[in-house]
Amino acid sequence: MIQFSKSVNSLRTSEIRDLMGLATRPDIISFAGGMPGNELFPVEDIDEIYNSLPLDSKQTAFQYGPTPGYPPLLESLKEYLQKKGMAVKKNKLMITTGSLQAINILAKVFIDPEDVVVTENPCFIGGISAFKSYQAILHGIDLDENGINLELLKNFLRQSKSTPPKFIYLTPNFHNPAGTLYTEERKKDLVPVLQEHELLLVEDDAYGELYFDDEARKRVVPLKTLYENDLSICYTSTFSKILGPGFRLGWMLVPPEIYQKAELCKQSMDACSPNFTQVLANEFLRSGKMELYIQKMRLIYKRRKDTMAGAIRKYFPEEITWMEPKGGFYIWLKLPPKLDIMAVLKSSIEKGAVFVIGKTFDPEGKDNSHFRLAYSHTPEGKIEKGIQILGDCLKEELRLSK
Amino acid sequence: MIQFSKSVNSLRTSEIRDLMGLATRPDIISFAGGMPGNELFPVEDIDEIYNSLPLDSKQTAFQYGPTPGYPPLLESLKEYLQKKGMAVKKNKLMITTGSLQAINILAKVFIDPEDVVVTENPCFIGGISAFKSYQAILHGIDLDENGINLELLKNFLRQSKSTPPKFIYLTPNFHNPAGTLYTEERKKDLVPVLQEHELLLVEDDAYGELYFDDEARKRVVPLKTLYENDLSICYTSTFSKILGPGFRLGWMLVPPEIYQKAELCKQSMDACSPNFTQVLANEFLRSGKMELYIQKMRLIYKRRKDTMAGAIRKYFPEEITWMEPKGGFYIWLKLPPKLDIMAVLKSSIEKGAVFVIGKTFDPEGKDNSHFRLAYSHTPEGKIEKGIQILGDCLKEELRLSK
Repeated sequence: MIQFSKSVNSLRTSEIRDLMGLATRPDIISFAGGMPGNELFPVEDIDEIYNSLPLDSKQTAFQYGPTPGYPPLLESLKEYLQKKGMAVKKNKLMITTGSLQAINILAKVFIDPEDVVVTENPCFIGGISAFKSYQAILHGIDLDENGINLELLKNFLRQSKSTPPKFIYLTPNFHNPAGTLYTEERKKDLVPVLQEHELLLVEDDAYGELYFDDEARKRVVPLKTLYENDLSICYTSTFSKILGPGFRLGWMLVPPEIYQKAELCKQSMDACSPNFTQVLANEFLRSGKMELYIQKMRLIYKRRKDTMAGAIRKYFPEEITWMEPKGGFYIWLKLPPKLDIMAVLKSSIEKGAVFVIGKTFDPEGKDNSHFRLAYSHTPEGKIEKGIQILGDCLKEELRLSK
Repeated sequence: MIQFSKSVNSLRTSEIRDLMGLATRPDIISFAGGMPGNELFPVEDIDEIYNSLPLDSKQTAFQYGPTPGYPPLLESLKEYLQKKGMAVKKNKLMITTGSLQAINILAKVFIDPEDVVVTENPCFIGGISAFKSYQAILHGIDLDENGINLELLKNFLRQSKSTPPKFIYLTPNFHNPAGTLYTEERKKDLVPVLQEHELLLVEDDAYGELYFDDEARKRVVPLKTLYENDLSICYTSTFSKILGPGFRLGWMLVPPEIYQKAELCKQSMDACSPNFTQVLANEFLRSGKMELYIQKMRLIYKRRKDTMAGAIRKYFPEEITWMEPKGGFYIWLKLPPKLDIMAVLKSSIEKGAVFVIGKTFDPEGKDNSHFRLAYSHTPEGKIEKGIQILGDCLKEELRLSK
């Protein structure tokens, strides 16, 4: 009989996996995946870049690169982050195979079995599975409209003084799945709490570039930029939302002593991230094409969000409550009590629309009082139709629940 | 103070790292890295493939893919492996981010802290660091010219009945660093030993395609092909040596129950391997370009090996003993007693040639009685010159050691 490790036994297949598998029918309207629409990728830009590469750059693209990343990309990215006010000189930058690998590496650097990690509740599913894969005990703290609930956080940290958490994992900009954008005040008030407990912060900023208006633009400044001198912060981000997830390129910007351990981990994981896509990403960034592309994406995602928000107002029962996001990919909706979201999911897949149920994002895998809609990869025409289907299913289930 | 995890503390920076860092001078002749020469990559083939891709394939290349791999690549690769006699239907195939990730995932699937893993001695350094990163205790069994020493293996397995090893990790084809190609007999004799102890085999076949003659071609048949019905075997391989390491694409072919756990691990590590390079690798394989390319590479690597072997005979002191490899990338050389290989490395880097010292490949990090020369990434003209430099340093150190 095969004996698996304890850590792999702590990972579970999602029970709704088969159900979601059904949802890949070509006729189905999907609000499920957290990805850009295929039609939005900068294919022409990359074509132009690829075909302008000199032979030696192409050869470099085929070769192994240094573990921390393709040096020219590290330089371009440092410049980019420095322009945004990040302390790139006090920290070290590492390219990772998607930002999920950055999060996984940081989990490996800090977590021993039974260690506590604090997350938001809800939480990015990749974070949950990365932390669980190292047998962490997750404690989720509720989000409100302005960010993580500080009273709940303070209480928990006070209670857990004998077994302090290894770190806190937060996504202050356009949270996945909650869509929340932290207020400046909430970020400011968070600092003394983390300081008091000397709690390391892992800040995930996968969506910060995708703000929809000027007010949001001002608010997406990362904690890593604002509080570099006050807190110990490991910052992670990604090219997945501003170039393409298929490039599998993310990064971490972290204090040097943490970087040193992270590099050893990465060496044992995949030696280096794909040089092929790093060479292309570097030219995309260096040429200025990336900034132009992001500007376009902000407008497109905002239009999709507006369309979805409008359709929700039109087709969803009033009992469903939600906040309009100021950026990112997602709308997070709260159900009235007793409404069975699994029944809604089943009937909605039958009728041709799919989404993700809330407990997927609960660190404890229980709370099903919400669901997530992604507007990022669905053209506007389909959004309206899909929301109408979903609205019908919600209304029907609501009727049955009364 | 930052408290790191126990598992990350089990990883150490190589002490000769700084020394090897010096060896990136452009004038230096390197026999160090285990990679193809930059000038050998099939850049034109991939140019042609890239520019012939229809828009929707390119868009797919930019997008996330399924965790186990880009489905058309999985299909092409299955066909390719089936033609070579592998039982692809009884097993499951997964694309990984280099074969190092495949090895790392299998380590994660099986290893709890303090578990024993049996390796060859010497052993691929990536394997060593992957196993150590899960706090395995490594036990290396010496290789002889025909493969792993079965008497030593039997003794060890008999002694460790109370704490049986989790698996044995072997590279039967053109071993890195030893260059060894297992004989058919050694492979056959290994089977009852593994059966008796119900020992799972992780078979790393990164170099099997790169045989130099017909006799070697007949001998590279993997244990996974020969003994599928007799043993439990997890097979790993890679595109790194037959397309380009910068694509970061490897694979594992493993029994379904192991695959299921491996997929969960990969989900928590990087979600999927780069779709961008998977789309290209699929066309490379499907078009038949890959087989033509490998045929060319066999000839080129053989010529480089011949050149290096000739130069070693000409310039190295007779006290250095070695076996001529029948394929792969490496020559592994044994030093006479008391010769200080670190001193040779220092003077050789000064004079313009670099290689890797033996203890890098010792699972226990001690034995420095050998060194490794890679001929794979150095053109023939430079090989002769580099070996002459190294020969001078070896002779000088040998003189001092007497």
